[in-house]
Amino acid sequence: MRPVDWYNDRVRFIDQTRLPLEEIYFETDDVEVLADAIRSLRIRGAPALGIAAAFGIVLGARGYTGSNRSEFLRHIDTVSSIIGSTRPTAVNLFWALRRMQLIISAHPSGDIAEMKTSLLTEALAIQHEEIETCRMICRHGAGIIPDGSGVLTHCNTGALATGDHGTALGAIIHAHDTGKKVLVYVDETRPLFQGARLTTWELQHHGIDTVLITDSTAAFVMQQGKIDVVIVGADRIVANGEVANKVGTYTIAVLAEKHGIPFYVAAPSSTVDIGLSSGKEIPIEERDSREITEVFGHRIAPSGIAVYAPAFDVTHHELISGIITEYGILRPPYRTSIQAMMNNRMIKAGKQ
Amino acid sequence: MRPVDWYNDRVRFIDQTRLPLEEIYFETDDVEVLADAIRSLRIRGAPALGIAAAFGIVLGARGYTGSNRSEFLRHIDTVSSIIGSTRPTAVNLFWALRRMQLIISAHPSGDIAEMKTSLLTEALAIQHEEIETCRMICRHGAGIIPDGSGVLTHCNTGALATGDHGTALGAIIHAHDTGKKVLVYVDETRPLFQGARLTTWELQHHGIDTVLITDSTAAFVMQQGKIDVVIVGADRIVANGEVANKVGTYTIAVLAEKHGIPFYVAAPSSTVDIGLSSGKEIPIEERDSREITEVFGHRIAPSGIAVYAPAFDVTHHELISGIITEYGILRPPYRTSIQAMMNNRMIKAGKQ
Repeated sequence: MRPVDWYNDRVRFIDQTRLPLEEIYFETDDVEVLADAIRSLRIRGAPALGIAAAFGIVLGARGYTGSNRSEFLRHIDTVSSIIGSTRPTAVNLFWALRRMQLIISAHPSGDIAEMKTSLLTEALAIQHEEIETCRMICRHGAGIIPDGSGVLTHCNTGALATGDHGTALGAIIHAHDTGKKVLVYVDETRPLFQGARLTTWELQHHGIDTVLITDSTAAFVMQQGKIDVVIVGADRIVANGEVANKVGTYTIAVLAEKHGIPFYVAAPSSTVDIGLSSGKEIPIEERDSREITEVFGHRIAPSGIAVYAPAFDVTHHELISGIITEYGILRPPYRTSIQAMMNNRMIKAGKQ
Repeated sequence: MRPVDWYNDRVRFIDQTRLPLEEIYFETDDVEVLADAIRSLRIRGAPALGIAAAFGIVLGARGYTGSNRSEFLRHIDTVSSIIGSTRPTAVNLFWALRRMQLIISAHPSGDIAEMKTSLLTEALAIQHEEIETCRMICRHGAGIIPDGSGVLTHCNTGALATGDHGTALGAIIHAHDTGKKVLVYVDETRPLFQGARLTTWELQHHGIDTVLITDSTAAFVMQQGKIDVVIVGADRIVANGEVANKVGTYTIAVLAEKHGIPFYVAAPSSTVDIGLSSGKEIPIEERDSREITEVFGHRIAPSGIAVYAPAFDVTHHELISGIITEYGILRPPYRTSIQAMMNNRMIKAGKQ
């Protein structure tokens, strides 16, 4: 299933905030509507954000009806800023925006109509590549899930979070599809319950045994010996292998270390930000405090209370057993293995 | 403030499930209403449960209007079973029930009217002792909170959870009242949000700087060096120092160890169950799965999904820096220090 897609000259997406109670699809040709959908997490998940950003540039380009080339370029810059301002931590979004910018700056003719066509072609290529990338991640990732194992995951990294197939959750589903017996413990993932709402929904669709727990229950489940492997996604991976992912990921990594459980991160190479040397440099998005103090409109804390609401946390590379990408599983020392993968990736891109 | 009290020949209690939005008090002379209030967490917190259980026996005794002594004793047994079945993990509840039973079995006259009077006297004594006990815990506990420190706590261990004053939260408040500057990070405490709803409310009433976080954010806050000490309560402490407390406590203990942060448990000696040798023997209450899958009536997970909903987890004694009781701070090895305290307690009880 594709949470965000190009359909009838519009962007079509499922409203993830309404799941699992309602499956509602939206279609839009308005880049502001798309940006708002990203901001409000109707569209979410690092790989899906890359695809949505690319389609957003297409919508923006099509929205320009003039014929002045430099005006068109300024317009695209503005659209790019609007989309870039929605989610500061997810690097796939910026990666996709850069690829789209490159289509314009390196365009052979510079003709506006041709650039619009090239942008759509590039966005569809990004979508196609991300889907293929996830397919490879699922294959590599399934290899680290033993038959008959208990698997813990956090947040949602399934088809909903990606172009299709998923990353960490995709690996679990692929393990199941290839005949392995798995029991998946799903962290509910406060504050927005992506685990409870989305991951359980995807696992149920695939007929996979699932147990929903609160985030705070993961440690107790590990203590009872029920977890054999942890696998999560990533919103940004930096040069030394440190990972920004949904807040609570670092907690699980520490708990996994304490209980001797392997802890894996699964993400496309587009999640890697080689320009940052360590996790400390990653900008951490803070969400509106009402995402904590209100639950579906019901206030759960006294008014006036201070809140700290980071969307992400940073996991130290020493806690990570391996990083599963479309090129295979990276192992420590990550500074070396990540650099090697990125070199390999550039060579492949150059050959295309 | 007293969350549960004897008032106008009835039990008066505040409905903690409605806080912080509404402060609603109930009065009842019906033991079934009281038992239901305990079961549904309108009354909650280990020390408060002891007091509520004692008052419940008083209500039960008064509800018997006959004059047959053995019938009266059977009636009290039934009432005791009703109250005992509400929350299997909190040992204070059973400790209070035993004390009340002892009043009857060792009653000098055996006259029903006199026994009813003696039961009320004993229940009020339990309440008075628990309040004094908490006052001492607050004093001892404040000593481990440095001036200018960041303190993390979980669930609610304030006045609401006790007869008055509180235990872990009471210690923080006492530190503040005696002139120390503290900044309290409060875990929201899923699934029932006791931290978000109750602890923030109490801290706000005392004018103490407070930051509300999701349970999953504690690790990231520790990583940033914002926490100097952790202090939590307990629902049961066994002979080797292992502690059952609100699910998520074990998580924080592991995180505190990882970050070199002292981790303290504060609880009255009535929380100690010397009859159990290790934490593995503690019965862990499982709550209704709807406490996880529904938030204020709003369903957050697909129907039919399996849920694991333990109310408590067990923290290994090696992770605990000290156990703060009314007698002072117990240190490892806990098997020795707990036994010494319990011997001391029996000597004091004998002298009374």
